[in-house]
Amino acid sequence: MNDIVTAGILVIGDEILSGRTKDKNIGFIAEYLTNIGIDLKEVRVVADDEADIIAALDALRSRYTYVFTTGGRGPTHGDITADSVAKAFGVGIDLAPGFKIGNVIVMAGVPSIMQAMMDIVAPKLKSGVRMLSDTVRANAREGDIGGPLREIANAHPDTIIGSYPFQDEDKKPNTNLVVRSRDPEKLQAAMNAVKQMLADLNVLR
Amino acid sequence: MNDIVTAGILVIGDEILSGRTKDKNIGFIAEYLTNIGIDLKEVRVVADDEADIIAALDALRSRYTYVFTTGGRGPTHGDITADSVAKAFGVGIDLAPGFKIGNVIVMAGVPSIMQAMMDIVAPKLKSGVRMLSDTVRANAREGDIGGPLREIANAHPDTIIGSYPFQDEDKKPNTNLVVRSRDPEKLQAAMNAVKQMLADLNVLR
Repeated sequence: MNDIVTAGILVIGDEILSGRTKDKNIGFIAEYLTNIGIDLKEVRVVADDEADIIAALDALRSRYTYVFTTGGRGPTHGDITADSVAKAFGVGIDLAPGFKIGNVIVMAGVPSIMQAMMDIVAPKLKSGVRMLSDTVRANAREGDIGGPLREIANAHPDTIIGSYPFQDEDKKPNTNLVVRSRDPEKLQAAMNAVKQMLADLNVLR
Repeated sequence: MNDIVTAGILVIGDEILSGRTKDKNIGFIAEYLTNIGIDLKEVRVVADDEADIIAALDALRSRYTYVFTTGGRGPTHGDITADSVAKAFGVGIDLAPGFKIGNVIVMAGVPSIMQAMMDIVAPKLKSGVRMLSDTVRANAREGDIGGPLREIANAHPDTIIGSYPFQDEDKKPNTNLVVRSRDPEKLQAAMNAVKQMLADLNVLR
């Protein structure tokens, strides 16, 4: 079994922090990494400030297999991202977004360009065993199934069980239950337990 | 002149990191805070993991005036957010999202509920002098105005000048220039310099 491969994302940009621009990159990269078996563990958004960028970069790159950065002001202010990455690594580089140094992949902030860069870099990355997931609609309020769900989670340690409340088409509170695991048999066993629990609950009503 | 009031956001949720759910809260809170004169300085997204939540919370709450948290699994797993916040403060609390302890405001992850909570909490917050901004369309490529723009930025220290490239309706690379300042006169002076620079450039073409 492969090692678990992890990642952090560092989004750089005053315009994200001011709310002027709404980030579209975190969700895209998160989904992309999940699909290629890389676990995204943490995201940080910092200003276009060299000290802030370096501090966040150093925290993330020491902790995770890969760090993906997006954004940072472009040519106007001397490409602060490239400068900050170079300082964090203690090297002199003169590169635009689109490069990889050590375990850090520096990408553009414009979503279409960032996405093209992901397609180029992805085949070169070490990837882990893909996380699998399965979802069931509970037809129950989240609070009503919390107890039994916790028992199932405890009994199935190599799985992650999440509950996601939503309002259904009849405006009733409903819940999606998602089981995730890298092991298809363990995923199946936990999902079976979840479905049995839901069936039992419905009998009791 | 009031002090500058700062904030951090802590988004908690495996489902954001897996890409299953796309965050809509960061952009909303960022814009909201800008509008009430609070400077958002940093955002972190971490998993539904107590140690990760506490570490991020402690980093943010010691650094900024306020910390806003969103999400964290609900009743299913014993409301990990409330438990983690309580541990970070070393107190025993038994509260659902929607509470404020110290400088930390704990909010729900569901956007409509989170937004209602912001409206309730906002009037109780200390707020600073609102950041003002003005935008001009350069009708130029970002790279072509980087040099003169840097000179203007250096000559106007109490302003922040950002350039945001976009593709215009004729599919040409274009750039929005945004000047921000808390001081309306300094904002005006810097914007005048930017507009003069753009006018000079167009003469030269």
